Amino acid sequence: MSQISNYTFDEITIGQKASYSRVIGEKEIILFAAASGDVNPVHLDAEFAASSIFKERIAHGMLTGGVISAALALVLPGPGCIYLGQSLRFQKPVKIGDELTAQLEVTAKREDKEILTIECEVLNQHGKVVASGTATIKAPSEKIIIDEPSAPRVTIEA
Amino acid sequence: MSQISNYTFDEITIGQKASYSRVIGEKEIILFAAASGDVNPVHLDAEFAASSIFKERIAHGMLTGGVISAALALVLPGPGCIYLGQSLRFQKPVKIGDELTAQLEVTAKREDKEILTIECEVLNQHGKVVASGTATIKAPSEKIIIDEPSAPRVTIEA
Repeated sequence: MSQISNYTFDEITIGQKASYSRVIGEKEIILFAAASGDVNPVHLDAEFAASSIFKERIAHGMLTGGVISAALALVLPGPGCIYLGQSLRFQKPVKIGDELTAQLEVTAKREDKEILTIECEVLNQHGKVVASGTATIKAPSEKIIIDEPSAPRVTIEA
Repeated sequence: MSQISNYTFDEITIGQKASYSRVIGEKEIILFAAASGDVNPVHLDAEFAASSIFKERIAHGMLTGGVISAALALVLPGPGCIYLGQSLRFQKPVKIGDELTAQLEVTAKREDKEILTIECEVLNQHGKVVASGTATIKAPSEKIIIDEPSAPRVTIEA
């Protein structure tokens, strides 16, 4: 089993970058709807979506936010960080099957409270920015090395 | 089957309010992790979480964001709206079994582009604000009345 480790506040430098990629398939959209209760038909109903401005089903914006959350929690700073805030601009629709890459860059460190400002951009497989924003994160004080958690296994019923 | 309808830009008034409630159980947290890839052990691993500042498993901040997304998509303005942006401050941890209520209030209307500013607060069952922020939404131009979509049925495997 592979392991993941975090970066402590002291280890992190301004300008430090990281990225995390995830394919958003129909399954991820359905699971996000089931988790959040957001059953907006533009995400779940092909017929409704066809009549929308998007012409096809799209992913929830906040699911793209979840990919940023995963990047922060698993890569930079990684486990032990505390999410204090996030701004998000949803710039382009995310379609079923799109591969999203969240790119992070540390742009400020507040020494007294060990708080980081991290600029976030999420690109699709065509290199287009689909969402961007700024995360505010309390960095971990202590080094943590853990076995990489496995994803929960879930089944969608017909 | 019950129906839901939206509010068009012209119908919406500054000061208009709405709310949407959802219980965040272990199931919702696992589904959010499976959707987003955010398998941060503070959400999924009771032993890891016990050693954290929170002392127990907590929900993903962005899952609370998902409850706001559901409130906007299903209640105000409802179907046909387009999510342009969201700011979020995560103020208190959300624990397993908490009932969250997203409270929305329209605070500005931009007539030329039919864009709304909606202040969002998410409270727990004790009346404490767990998250707050501002949504930017393109309001629907046309009235939509649809059958209330049913939640996807999913099963979590052991």
